[in-house]
Amino acid sequence: MIKCKGFRAAGVASGLKKNGGKDLGILISEVPANVAGVFTRNRVQAAPVILDRERIQSGVGRAIIVNSGNANCCTGAKGLRDAEKMTAGVAARLDIDNDQVFAASTGVIGKPLPIEKIETAIPGLIDAADADGFKDLAEAIMTTDTVPKMVTEEGRLGKDRFTVIGVAKGAGMIRPDMATMLCFVCTDVNASPGVLKTALSAATERSMNRISIDGDTSTNDTVLLMANGLSSAVVRSADEQNIFQKSLDAVLIQLARMLVKDGAGATKLVEIAVQGVATDADADQIADTIAHSSLVKTALFGEDANWGRIIAAAGRSGVAIDPNKIDIRFNQIGIVKNGVGCGRDAEVLATEVLKQAEYTILLDCHQGEGTASVLTCDFSVDYVNINADYRS
Amino acid sequence: MIKCKGFRAAGVASGLKKNGGKDLGILISEVPANVAGVFTRNRVQAAPVILDRERIQSGVGRAIIVNSGNANCCTGAKGLRDAEKMTAGVAARLDIDNDQVFAASTGVIGKPLPIEKIETAIPGLIDAADADGFKDLAEAIMTTDTVPKMVTEEGRLGKDRFTVIGVAKGAGMIRPDMATMLCFVCTDVNASPGVLKTALSAATERSMNRISIDGDTSTNDTVLLMANGLSSAVVRSADEQNIFQKSLDAVLIQLARMLVKDGAGATKLVEIAVQGVATDADADQIADTIAHSSLVKTALFGEDANWGRIIAAAGRSGVAIDPNKIDIRFNQIGIVKNGVGCGRDAEVLATEVLKQAEYTILLDCHQGEGTASVLTCDFSVDYVNINADYRS
Repeated sequence: MIKCKGFRAAGVASGLKKNGGKDLGILISEVPANVAGVFTRNRVQAAPVILDRERIQSGVGRAIIVNSGNANCCTGAKGLRDAEKMTAGVAARLDIDNDQVFAASTGVIGKPLPIEKIETAIPGLIDAADADGFKDLAEAIMTTDTVPKMVTEEGRLGKDRFTVIGVAKGAGMIRPDMATMLCFVCTDVNASPGVLKTALSAATERSMNRISIDGDTSTNDTVLLMANGLSSAVVRSADEQNIFQKSLDAVLIQLARMLVKDGAGATKLVEIAVQGVATDADADQIADTIAHSSLVKTALFGEDANWGRIIAAAGRSGVAIDPNKIDIRFNQIGIVKNGVGCGRDAEVLATEVLKQAEYTILLDCHQGEGTASVLTCDFSVDYVNINADYRS
Repeated sequence: MIKCKGFRAAGVASGLKKNGGKDLGILISEVPANVAGVFTRNRVQAAPVILDRERIQSGVGRAIIVNSGNANCCTGAKGLRDAEKMTAGVAARLDIDNDQVFAASTGVIGKPLPIEKIETAIPGLIDAADADGFKDLAEAIMTTDTVPKMVTEEGRLGKDRFTVIGVAKGAGMIRPDMATMLCFVCTDVNASPGVLKTALSAATERSMNRISIDGDTSTNDTVLLMANGLSSAVVRSADEQNIFQKSLDAVLIQLARMLVKDGAGATKLVEIAVQGVATDADADQIADTIAHSSLVKTALFGEDANWGRIIAAAGRSGVAIDPNKIDIRFNQIGIVKNGVGCGRDAEVLATEVLKQAEYTILLDCHQGEGTASVLTCDFSVDYVNINADYRS
């Protein structure tokens, strides 16, 4: 098992989840690490997000504590005190500064956090933490996720090796244009807070902000990156930054794909690619509208080559496009040419593509140089069942 | 049965629908009527919409022909010719000017219209038309609708009575911010094209633009209003305009409610009301975001008082609101006060509200005077089943 020097992790059951599953996780660095974070842009922000936003200013951290089963959001002054208490419990046990502990929560909004259960579980959680504990951490942050999500990458700066390990949870309530779900990344590379911040923003933009599950945006979304510098690899030059960026991108992009693939009830992983419009922003807006359309997503679930819904979504995206120039391809199969369907034979071939678990839908508008791509999933009967019953 | 002087309607089966149901409808005025129309804002527009937009310039019309089972959209030059042929067939049979016939289509996008079937059916359709044929017309425009939608209103200007009759179809692919689905209204009042245009825009804004089913926007949405002046009621003064507006509003608002209630797979009719924000436009944006949230809509289906999803949707609406001032009520039951949940007893009462077929969710932000209201429906397992299988 690949290790990330000086980091240990754990996940335990503290009694927050009704099913008795792991619901409390921790990530600890042996030494103070440089830290960067990206948070939800929702105006409604969970207590741990409010806390982390303050603490991230210092750029230094030692540990992240996270619970599932309760979002600690819309919980008022008590919620803020509870988030603080989560971190204080960790700080006391590790004998470190409270301000160097970050918190995250995921689960139902608006229920008081059972903080006593968490406080009781913290000593055992910290004692359980070791270099092989990332899988347990990944399990402890799951909500409607069906599999834990963890990615490891090794990089090299000259002769010096470094490691990046990331864990994430997603499922419902994810959309582009924001930080996204919970994602914790650690690396033993030596990099300044400024370098980390730039690298994390860029990697998030290329990964978590390029995916769509149901168009909703969580109040708790958090991506945290810790770099403790315990490897011999040091990021200084622009070249070294690029190398580190590639490793970080690889981790976040793989995690993002895992999130969409495991989207609540999802059975398909579909890339929506748009090209040939005036600007990248226009392409993005079109791709995003298609990726969020309930009618498109139900057709993907039904393996129905209903391209009319795709072109209709593009048409209502707000971007000024001429529909008579639009071509659509499902993988290599052309199904629309100049805004008109290619006929029954093409539909038969396209339907074969739709039976695959992963494929690309390309919209070429032939009206400019802008391009964009968004990963999305289908909208299944199970999505409704999962989300109708989530709290019960 | 209330009649609208000088109007007759019909609906027949022409073989466009696989199930053999009625799929071709007509509305005819005995004399040239003044006409107003509101059309989809989608950039992708069906052939009949393109045709009607031109013809509406004259402000005069005699008939509307409409088919279901095929949208005649993304059908290229042939599609435009076919839309023209539909109207030409009617004009020839009635011996009227081709430009005074309007066309509408609804159904699958991208399939060539079987125009021969329509042309063959037109004589029988016109022969069948009579003053009691509105119900048949309402049936002929249904797609995934489960019930025909028709509303009749009688009004009075002084001693002079007039009648307004409207039919509509909806189900999937409807959102506020545009003209919406197919809706045909006739009245025997005497009103100028200018008066009709103003009245129809206002009524549409208060009805069809205040509803949401799945956030998608059709390429074919059309509202047409014909006034043939065959009653003795004449709209001249501002007071008379107001009286006519009220009748027209009543017809369109009732039809809009019917559309949401019969939204694809819908089991609930829910009003999302927002008040206490800076402007009406802000309130609208918040109401709209909540009304479109898949997570909110699945919770409504599940009768789950998951107000966290409602406040999270408000938070991502793009409007600058302070979540700590938000109150939420389900009908009269307060469930959130100052951004924090009101506890288990309130949730039990709120859950009782959610079991009803119709109710109101009110978000009071206490931050201004802006208000808005949107009608929405829940997101059910049947929505996915209906839309996954629509073309098969």
